[in-house]
Amino acid sequence: MNDDHRSNPLRDPRDRRLPRIAGPCALVIFGVTGDLAGKKLLPAVYDLANRGLLPPGFALVGYARRDWDDEAFASVVLESVKKNARTPFKEEVWTQLRRGIRFVSGNFTDDEGFQALRETLRDLEESQGTAGNNAFYLSIPPGHFDGVVGKLRRLGLADQGGVRWSRVIIEKPFGHDLESAQELNRVVGSVFPPESVFRIDHYLGKETVQNMLAVRFANQMFEPIWNNNYVSHVQITMAEDIGIGGRAGYYDGIGAARDVIQNHLLQLMALTAMEEPNNFEADELRAEKRKVLAAASTPADLAAHTARGQYLGGWQGGEKVRGYLEEEGIEPGSMTETYAAIRVDVDNRRWAGVPFYLRTAKRMPRRVTEIALNFKRAPHLPFADTDTQEMGTNALVMRIQPDEGVTMRFGAKVPGTAMEIREVSMDFGYGGSFTESSPEAYERLILDVLLGDPPLFPQHEEVELGWKILDPVLDFWESTGAQPEGYAAGTWGPASADEMLARDGFTWRRP
Amino acid sequence: MNDDHRSNPLRDPRDRRLPRIAGPCALVIFGVTGDLAGKKLLPAVYDLANRGLLPPGFALVGYARRDWDDEAFASVVLESVKKNARTPFKEEVWTQLRRGIRFVSGNFTDDEGFQALRETLRDLEESQGTAGNNAFYLSIPPGHFDGVVGKLRRLGLADQGGVRWSRVIIEKPFGHDLESAQELNRVVGSVFPPESVFRIDHYLGKETVQNMLAVRFANQMFEPIWNNNYVSHVQITMAEDIGIGGRAGYYDGIGAARDVIQNHLLQLMALTAMEEPNNFEADELRAEKRKVLAAASTPADLAAHTARGQYLGGWQGGEKVRGYLEEEGIEPGSMTETYAAIRVDVDNRRWAGVPFYLRTAKRMPRRVTEIALNFKRAPHLPFADTDTQEMGTNALVMRIQPDEGVTMRFGAKVPGTAMEIREVSMDFGYGGSFTESSPEAYERLILDVLLGDPPLFPQHEEVELGWKILDPVLDFWESTGAQPEGYAAGTWGPASADEMLARDGFTWRRP
Repeated sequence: MNDDHRSNPLRDPRDRRLPRIAGPCALVIFGVTGDLAGKKLLPAVYDLANRGLLPPGFALVGYARRDWDDEAFASVVLESVKKNARTPFKEEVWTQLRRGIRFVSGNFTDDEGFQALRETLRDLEESQGTAGNNAFYLSIPPGHFDGVVGKLRRLGLADQGGVRWSRVIIEKPFGHDLESAQELNRVVGSVFPPESVFRIDHYLGKETVQNMLAVRFANQMFEPIWNNNYVSHVQITMAEDIGIGGRAGYYDGIGAARDVIQNHLLQLMALTAMEEPNNFEADELRAEKRKVLAAASTPADLAAHTARGQYLGGWQGGEKVRGYLEEEGIEPGSMTETYAAIRVDVDNRRWAGVPFYLRTAKRMPRRVTEIALNFKRAPHLPFADTDTQEMGTNALVMRIQPDEGVTMRFGAKVPGTAMEIREVSMDFGYGGSFTESSPEAYERLILDVLLGDPPLFPQHEEVELGWKILDPVLDFWESTGAQPEGYAAGTWGPASADEMLARDGFTWRRP
Repeated sequence: MNDDHRSNPLRDPRDRRLPRIAGPCALVIFGVTGDLAGKKLLPAVYDLANRGLLPPGFALVGYARRDWDDEAFASVVLESVKKNARTPFKEEVWTQLRRGIRFVSGNFTDDEGFQALRETLRDLEESQGTAGNNAFYLSIPPGHFDGVVGKLRRLGLADQGGVRWSRVIIEKPFGHDLESAQELNRVVGSVFPPESVFRIDHYLGKETVQNMLAVRFANQMFEPIWNNNYVSHVQITMAEDIGIGGRAGYYDGIGAARDVIQNHLLQLMALTAMEEPNNFEADELRAEKRKVLAAASTPADLAAHTARGQYLGGWQGGEKVRGYLEEEGIEPGSMTETYAAIRVDVDNRRWAGVPFYLRTAKRMPRRVTEIALNFKRAPHLPFADTDTQEMGTNALVMRIQPDEGVTMRFGAKVPGTAMEIREVSMDFGYGGSFTESSPEAYERLILDVLLGDPPLFPQHEEVELGWKILDPVLDFWESTGAQPEGYAAGTWGPASADEMLARDGFTWRRP
């Protein structure tokens, strides 16, 4: 891994001011006709090209069952770029990118398509100068992983030969429980060495997630209060205002906890709770995240410390919306939760006694992802009691999306001739503070794969530790045999979730 | 002091929500024809009346040499109110206030005027219901204090009889060195007991100064970093963009250090550095401020750790302005400094090793008063060196005026695919956060005097400790026999001031 030292901007200081430009390579996308490719991956490739971060020797290869030729595929790419790219369309960028675009028609089970793919990649090495470096993006259902990586191995496409590299990119879900995750890791690991496997958790590609590392560790003033002496509890929220939309086939039977808590929220928790790494090399960063996850567990009394719900019909944003069970493609009487909240305790010196509350849901009043450190009240207030009665507790909120930034909530004096304290906020907004535009998470992550830069990708051990935390919750929920509690669309979730926090003396933020 | 417990909102919680309304009394202003009375005191009295904080039994008595009657004085008050009051003019408020307005013509040396004053106050007790409570505001040159308080005593006006009270209010300068301050305290103290002497430092009446107490002590997140483990140095600045204007007679021979550092800046330093008081009772608060001032001193090498300057002519705000020596009324070759900066060390466990830099000046580029806690760099940065090279150090800035609020400066990630850190700011603005309007400092302080609420007034010991800190500096400057260094109007002061900080490894903020 990291065979090219100059590719890691955190390792060679001379390199930071230079743009991080990928070396020659081909990016092969399996499942290129899917939603993710059209909305995110293809536009991200164009945006990288437009920012000058892809080399002349770059090729983009689509693989799918369609009976397209290169021309047809290129026009699909063009349409997707024009519709979804974040940077302006430039004819000359497109002309350059177009030269390396290829399509291979094939399925995931027969050899034929894979042989054609090998021919195409060999040809690109000659014609486009990709130097035989290939990245395979598996934007396909996990059931096909075994077959696809097996064929890549058999055809020699997974070989790490000399200066050449071959990398594989996989998307969540990384299994649906510990056992299936271990099996998935075994399958992929039998073909690709660990440093060539890139698990995409697109949250880790977000600017604001990386900014949390900057805020915590580049500054003097936050780390001293970042522990159980001062923090009372942490709330990590990912709320969506939408329902499941057209994703019934994927979502039903998976649910909110597997879809979001297992990966995104546990990763955010690990980044929030971890000790300072020696540096931001992948090994150092992962070691710290792993340590947190290995120390984390849910309380024994899961009935008291978890909550789940399923959205009912209602009104949202002035529109009448269906309940989960009325959505198209949902099994009648489905037990799948669309709201999940769990308490996680991190048993180490820094965090013992500080609950981390992780929640995610669909059909919330607002779309928001945030990490909120809530502080204890000051140990003593030299004010008369009522002077501070309108005051909540201090909070430091890392706003991941939308409206990215940092908010501090604290008490200040209300203007007037008496000493009355009220809560105020202090804001730093990413948008207002920088003229630089934030790259999309997929841009950053695809570039990192092409550069062989792994710090932002969770390793298999983290994935498995995540399931170790979540499996008991999923088992418990299943064991109750009960339907998740209903909550009206456009509300902040079921009553049991409020009770869960009230038991610990807290209330959920309404961000 | 505080004979009326209900008057202290910090003592009786039941009282906080009730407006703090003064009891029956007369406010006598000596020197009522002066600038301060016209611009600040008379409007503040009206504003208090307009906010409903003065009782029906309130009287306002002007005392000066003019040959006015009540009518003439009332029209002067009315003019000043209409011009300078902060709250809207209401006829009914004025009519009520007008009923208690009286004028006594007299000088500061003969008995006649004082006898007339006594008659007027007795009459007001009957006609207006002032209950014989009198507050005497000495808005006059300190040379007259002795005579005036002597006459008040001889005529029985300073008597603290039973439920009646008599209070005296004095303005800076509280002397011009330790000896004269002690003499002044002796003169006033021989007539009025300490709890009846109210020294006005109008900075302490400012909302944002009181807010610092709220921010420090009502919150959990600031106090842990408020010490020499994390703070590298503190800069307390009061910069004015104007010259001396028409105040040559007062200012020349006094200078920036005596005019501002001795009182305002040392008080701000004391509030910044002090330990948490048990509560905000005057005794507790003063004990903590006193402790800081008693532990504070300038370094032995005053040539290295102080700086002074005198403004030269130049351009400011698009206008050609005169140098100090060309101003009207200034002695030729005057040695008076218009820029003064000193380093103060506070030798206690919390602050040892953290220099406090106090500076004040006229003809600066901007009008600004602020307290800036500058933090050390993080002890270790897990980033490559250059990633953070654009980063300064963290700072927490309490903005006293204008644009009142709190700013935090810290490092955040620059958007982009590399980990680059740059400084950003987080702001809390008083104006944007509260709909309540801030009372003017004089409003607050006059009300506190009438209520007998002393926490915001420095006691004589603090004044004397201030001179103990400053006297060696003044003596040193005088001993050099040198003219203060010139600096162009509209600049941030003389080169020696920059060198003074550079010696310690710091630079002055350019707020």
